[in-house]
Amino acid sequence: MSTQIALAERTSTEMKFFHQDIRLWTEEGLQFIDLTDQVIELVERSGVQNGMVNVQTRHTTTAVIVNEHEPLLLEDMKRTLARLVPRDDDYQHNNFAIRTFNMTPDESPNGHSHCQGLLLSSSATLNVVDGEIQFGCWQRIFFIELDRARERSVSVMVIGQAAAPAVVSFPW
Amino acid sequence: MSTQIALAERTSTEMKFFHQDIRLWTEEGLQFIDLTDQVIELVERSGVQNGMVNVQTRHTTTAVIVNEHEPLLLEDMKRTLARLVPRDDDYQHNNFAIRTFNMTPDESPNGHSHCQGLLLSSSATLNVVDGEIQFGCWQRIFFIELDRARERSVSVMVIGQAAAPAVVSFPW
Amino acid sequence: MSTQIALAERTSTEMKFFHQDIRLWTEEGLQFIDLTDQVIELVERSGVQNGMVNVQTRHTTTAVIVNEHEPLLLEDMKRTLARLVPRDDDYQHNNFAIRTFNMTPDESPNGHSHCQGLLLSSSATLNVVDGEIQFGCWQRIFFIELDRARERSVSVMVIGQAAAPAVVSFPW
Repeated sequence: MSTQIALAERTSTEMKFFHQDIRLWTEEGLQFIDLTDQVIELVERSGVQNGMVNVQTRHTTTAVIVNEHEPLLLEDMKRTLARLVPRDDDYQHNNFAIRTFNMTPDESPNGHSHCQGLLLSSSATLNVVDGEIQFGCWQRIFFIELDRARERSVSVMVIGQAAAPAVVSFPW
Repeated sequence: MSTQIALAERTSTEMKFFHQDIRLWTEEGLQFIDLTDQVIELVERSGVQNGMVNVQTRHTTTAVIVNEHEPLLLEDMKRTLARLVPRDDDYQHNNFAIRTFNMTPDESPNGHSHCQGLLLSSSATLNVVDGEIQFGCWQRIFFIELDRARERSVSVMVIGQAAAPAVVSFPW
Repeated sequence: MSTQIALAERTSTEMKFFHQDIRLWTEEGLQFIDLTDQVIELVERSGVQNGMVNVQTRHTTTAVIVNEHEPLLLEDMKRTLARLVPRDDDYQHNNFAIRTFNMTPDESPNGHSHCQGLLLSSSATLNVVDGEIQFGCWQRIFFIELDRARERSVSVMVIGQAAAPAVVSFPW
């Protein structure tokens, strides 16, 4: 049923850690924002040749997922989320008459956003080999806004083996 | 739509690996246990300055997720899980008359627990920069018991660049 | 409610990066393929003693999850996915009369596969301590085919502290 291919093996004492936040301004609930090009650029700038990149949201009413960027499909995925976890259901988190925890001046009803987020991922971890994220041909990284138009922030960490200095010939 | 901020870049040959299990005794099904303070403490004790922490459950009827710790919201999330994957549905895994695999002396019907777990995460991977987990202000790490009161174990691995010895001045 | 056990701490300058693709030929939609033995073998071959393994699919109509390998339960999980995100729902991604993006010669209706994948994980990140993946006793890694019989590829990256050369005595 299966076989294994494409072995790559590296031993190194030179590690690289590269971190950057991506700041976003979302426009509406259930917005999918494609971060792929920015994450690819960060991995290139990191100089990491072999390792991992972890794309982590800093919010509890958002998600980071990997799927295909086809406009009609994005609508299908939005409908799926809204159908499984409807905005209009009864969420106690939205009951500001009884809720006392974590209330903010601009609090708005977003129980559905948290419960949609429960079913999604807060981060995507992808492998990096020879400086390239190991994407299949349709894979794209999306940030999903599950609440409303907000300023958002995504933490991107690349860790792994640094590229050898240009003057050194590699034995690989 | 977006811009990038807060660059942090480190090259190091000194790596640190720190692992610890967190042991838990859960009290009931659909219990959310906040592990955030313990994970923060482990990252501090690890001495890792830049890297990642991976919080991984060792069980198939539990989950590790990141969301907000607001008591009413926790009830909303429990109801969402119980509604989407009801305990009383017909699960063949619960049919001990025909099931032969993985039967244990204390086997109890938990098909719903596994199927709820299918929709959740078995681990959460978070970025660490300058010794701090890159949490947004509402993010908390939860262990979710999906079965019944049990002894549980969570594996926490911190990997990354070690802190420099205190007497060495850093060129960053 | 909880206590912490089993501390393991390592400092090292010798890092190892080991990557391999696992190639699969799936047979049908909603097929669960157990990759556990292959991933364990790759971790052993990597020589990594302490670190992480990330098992990442390269496709958008598949998933990588951790759950129990009990044949009746696998059927329960398939039914859960098919019930929550039915194949026969109306997906615009399947409307080839209006869709213009990402059309391929062998395009077939798989909107449900993408939307099921939205609820699942595209990778599983597991901790490695003393050369062993930190599995609980029932945990197995599954690749899930959500579309139809296809050739598939899974990227497995192991990163961490290399084993010491056999002739060197370790100070741990």
